[in-house]
Amino acid sequence: MAQYALGIDYGTNSCRSLLVDLSNGAEVGSTVFNYPSGEMGILLDPSDPHVARQNPRDYLAGLEAVITGALSQAAAAVSGFSGDQVVGIGIDTTGSTPIPVNREGTPLGLLPEFKDNLNAQVWLWKDHTGYAEAVEITALAQEMRPNIIAKCGGIYSSEWWWSKILRLRRTDPSVFDAAFSFVEHCDWIPAVLAGNTDPLTLKRSVCAAGHKAMFSSEWGGLPDKEFLAKLDPALADLRDRLFSEAHTSETSAGLLCAEWAAKLGLKEGIAIAVGAFDAHMGAVGAGIKTGTLVKILGTSTCDLMISPATQPLADVPGVCGIVKGSVLPDCYGIEAGQSAVGDIFLWFVNHLVPDTYGATPGEKFVNMEKALSGQKPGQTGLLALDWNNGNRTVLVDVRLTGLILGQTLHTEAHEIYRALIEATAFGALTIIKRVEEYGVPVTEIINTGGLSIKNETLMQIYADVIGRPMKVSRSEQTCALGAAIFGAAVAGVGSIADLQTKVSAVREKVYVPDPANQAVYAELYELYRDVHDAFGTLSSIGNLGHVMKRLLDIRARQSA
Amino acid sequence: MAQYALGIDYGTNSCRSLLVDLSNGAEVGSTVFNYPSGEMGILLDPSDPHVARQNPRDYLAGLEAVITGALSQAAAAVSGFSGDQVVGIGIDTTGSTPIPVNREGTPLGLLPEFKDNLNAQVWLWKDHTGYAEAVEITALAQEMRPNIIAKCGGIYSSEWWWSKILRLRRTDPSVFDAAFSFVEHCDWIPAVLAGNTDPLTLKRSVCAAGHKAMFSSEWGGLPDKEFLAKLDPALADLRDRLFSEAHTSETSAGLLCAEWAAKLGLKEGIAIAVGAFDAHMGAVGAGIKTGTLVKILGTSTCDLMISPATQPLADVPGVCGIVKGSVLPDCYGIEAGQSAVGDIFLWFVNHLVPDTYGATPGEKFVNMEKALSGQKPGQTGLLALDWNNGNRTVLVDVRLTGLILGQTLHTEAHEIYRALIEATAFGALTIIKRVEEYGVPVTEIINTGGLSIKNETLMQIYADVIGRPMKVSRSEQTCALGAAIFGAAVAGVGSIADLQTKVSAVREKVYVPDPANQAVYAELYELYRDVHDAFGTLSSIGNLGHVMKRLLDIRARQSA
Repeated sequence: MAQYALGIDYGTNSCRSLLVDLSNGAEVGSTVFNYPSGEMGILLDPSDPHVARQNPRDYLAGLEAVITGALSQAAAAVSGFSGDQVVGIGIDTTGSTPIPVNREGTPLGLLPEFKDNLNAQVWLWKDHTGYAEAVEITALAQEMRPNIIAKCGGIYSSEWWWSKILRLRRTDPSVFDAAFSFVEHCDWIPAVLAGNTDPLTLKRSVCAAGHKAMFSSEWGGLPDKEFLAKLDPALADLRDRLFSEAHTSETSAGLLCAEWAAKLGLKEGIAIAVGAFDAHMGAVGAGIKTGTLVKILGTSTCDLMISPATQPLADVPGVCGIVKGSVLPDCYGIEAGQSAVGDIFLWFVNHLVPDTYGATPGEKFVNMEKALSGQKPGQTGLLALDWNNGNRTVLVDVRLTGLILGQTLHTEAHEIYRALIEATAFGALTIIKRVEEYGVPVTEIINTGGLSIKNETLMQIYADVIGRPMKVSRSEQTCALGAAIFGAAVAGVGSIADLQTKVSAVREKVYVPDPANQAVYAELYELYRDVHDAFGTLSSIGNLGHVMKRLLDIRARQSA
Repeated sequence: MAQYALGIDYGTNSCRSLLVDLSNGAEVGSTVFNYPSGEMGILLDPSDPHVARQNPRDYLAGLEAVITGALSQAAAAVSGFSGDQVVGIGIDTTGSTPIPVNREGTPLGLLPEFKDNLNAQVWLWKDHTGYAEAVEITALAQEMRPNIIAKCGGIYSSEWWWSKILRLRRTDPSVFDAAFSFVEHCDWIPAVLAGNTDPLTLKRSVCAAGHKAMFSSEWGGLPDKEFLAKLDPALADLRDRLFSEAHTSETSAGLLCAEWAAKLGLKEGIAIAVGAFDAHMGAVGAGIKTGTLVKILGTSTCDLMISPATQPLADVPGVCGIVKGSVLPDCYGIEAGQSAVGDIFLWFVNHLVPDTYGATPGEKFVNMEKALSGQKPGQTGLLALDWNNGNRTVLVDVRLTGLILGQTLHTEAHEIYRALIEATAFGALTIIKRVEEYGVPVTEIINTGGLSIKNETLMQIYADVIGRPMKVSRSEQTCALGAAIFGAAVAGVGSIADLQTKVSAVREKVYVPDPANQAVYAELYELYRDVHDAFGTLSSIGNLGHVMKRLLDIRARQSA
């Protein structure tokens, strides 16, 4: 009898389910639930654009909707299907997305007395209210605990755990005091399904803890009390009410409780995997193994690799985080990324592309792609930096901005669009060069995420710039697929590697570099690096007088 | 009885007249004539985008139309007006715009056998077919005659006299051989009016000869035969059929001949001034005197100053041309300029401004100006280089291109528009600093041209960036006004200075720098210079890592 696993992927505006046949990866059910609260699921504060909160009730409603929805679809599609065939559930979420909870692990936002207080709700990853606290944490850590901050690339972010909690303590102490503890979104959902939300005993994810809360067994778990007390004595007290252990997603978070089994139409007692972040589970769903780079191409990108923990791994300067077990047990998870990719294209199409290309952003993209498809690399004469939202890897600097050069009086919007795509490709290549330089060879690249499926022009440019075949994951839901794999692994169906062999695959279409284009892009990349290093680092590279001239030479050659 | 003078201004697509009351500058007649031939008056070659020729017949038809038109208007507007009250005529044109002529001085394009040959027509200033010849002339001059090329800023242009003539010799020797001589457009019109077009005796303009044909009394007129023969022996031969003298526009080009007097309704024998280029006469019309910088703000800009020839004047590196008498007799005319100003804004509005700002370029400009009017300097966080069409002064490098930096995911089109305006202002300031550094103090700035009248936002930004009051010429036709002044001066009505006092004036509205804005722009200018020097010169300025950060600091301060 066929066995199935469920992966649940909590995104920024919606959550979705994927019900997978574990023998062949067939996706027999998948439902989306848009969070009903706030604006596209996000609770905003008109007086402060940095606020981004969520209603925990949306998570519970979504959990029930997407699981029952997927089961109904499977029942309709697969003759004889039964919910009893589902053996395990995995959960991935955004992060760091901490939830203030009471002693029972109930989110304060679910309690009547806090339901209208934004500060008592879930603090979504993209809430940037703690930007000053992030600067403060960075400065203190660099002074007191440089080894700890080094693992985060040297800079602590307002998107992360401690910035948000310290911000709450500073600005709404009554809510902070009412919070017995804090739980990551990816830890709370498995706890709910397992029927044990006690903050002191529910299983915490090493992926979340390691990448966002500065947790590592190297220094005894969370940052020490002396350090936390310097930020605020209340944080040092809180440390005792958080956690001292964190787990990989091959670990059981508990068994499905009777209440939720009944509600969902699943068998009581099936496996629930410890949660993790979307990108990390997505890497597993895409088929990550040693040597594979998984690129999740979306509004921003996440680049993931693993390296066996049996071998020593140097700190890779400028890489967002290296956390043992964050992707797969017994491996270092290496996370890098670009602060904006799709977001740069959306910015451009929404703010700078005239209606001659079409009435909607979608039409504009299609017509720009058509217009640039006949052009050769270098023919635009343009060069751009992909820093409109800062640079996450390898410069780790949010205070960097975009740059476009090479414009003439004839430069057209689609040419700038091409230059922006190329800039993100150069940024991607810079990450690959950096990890390889520090002893992590990249032998395969698998792409996933919306852009990898929808934008063939971009994928071919990436192949030509990066100079390696670009594979694309077969599943459009690699995050949920990865979550399902962990659910199945915890259920004992097989090892992660065996499950990947069965359910993860790449598409037939592989984007292969064109050698002529690759050679031109190698020249352009040198110029990109000159501009990148001149504006992004303290290294003195002398003047940039050659950049525009070389671009014009290349343009002339490519236009001939 | 009132006295009048006529100024005729030949532009790229049309010519226009201005009939001026010499007692008070009242403009009593002005007519425009659009050249009927080709596309907007320009004869194009579909197979070569560099070709830009004109039909000499258009010049003659226009001459008659705009003069008779202005006289009719004056007759209608001023009671008792008569054509007999017109005492002199001045002519300005674009340039270098050479015309191949036969022994009689008749343009070959007017002869039946050449009427369909593009190469026999007038070679308009913007014809760039001679780009390779310009490179060749530059290289040879730098090797053989460095002192000659130094006066042109070190680089000879495809827009200039010898490039075009050499090109004709190389590509259509039959037309070259049929040409007894060549005459600048600004020299041919006065000759026609005076009834003597003999190429060997018609009066040549020192403005055209000095700025475009490397003519100077310092080296005996045109470049020597040895030099010309190295380019082509036919050019050395041609030298004898060109000219050995050149004159300022205070010189008579002859008296109005009977034929044209009858055709136009003017008195036979009135004064015709030697012609000159539009910008140079425009500077006089705007009221240039020692210490005054006249800025002609159009698609590109021309900046003109004069310096008394009684004082020594050093070569000013990077300045387009220094020619004695090219603006006023007994003064050096100093010409600088920016390769694109209005053209950059037109490029931006036509290619990159979405329709949310309006349906037409005009609406888009108006709404962008509204949107940016509330913003403080530095608030966009953007910095641009004004090099979309190269840099004429002070870098003298056509192979430079545009640059915009500082973009985030929220940058809007009107903010980029502001950055582009600021970039052109920084470019303008760079020119002022350069001439002052070489001993030519700027004590007054008078602006003229379309942008100075139509774009108040731009004018205020210029005042704030440049840190000096920006005056605007009263007349909208300063070039034609300057031509009229020369016509009157040659007629003996008064000195140029006297005539300027009577007919040239500035508007009441003067744009005065705001000290707070000026201080911020001083900071931004330092960053502009860093980027300018890094990309535009060979000086090593180290890295540019500070540029984006300083912009963000300024933005934060200005947004507070």
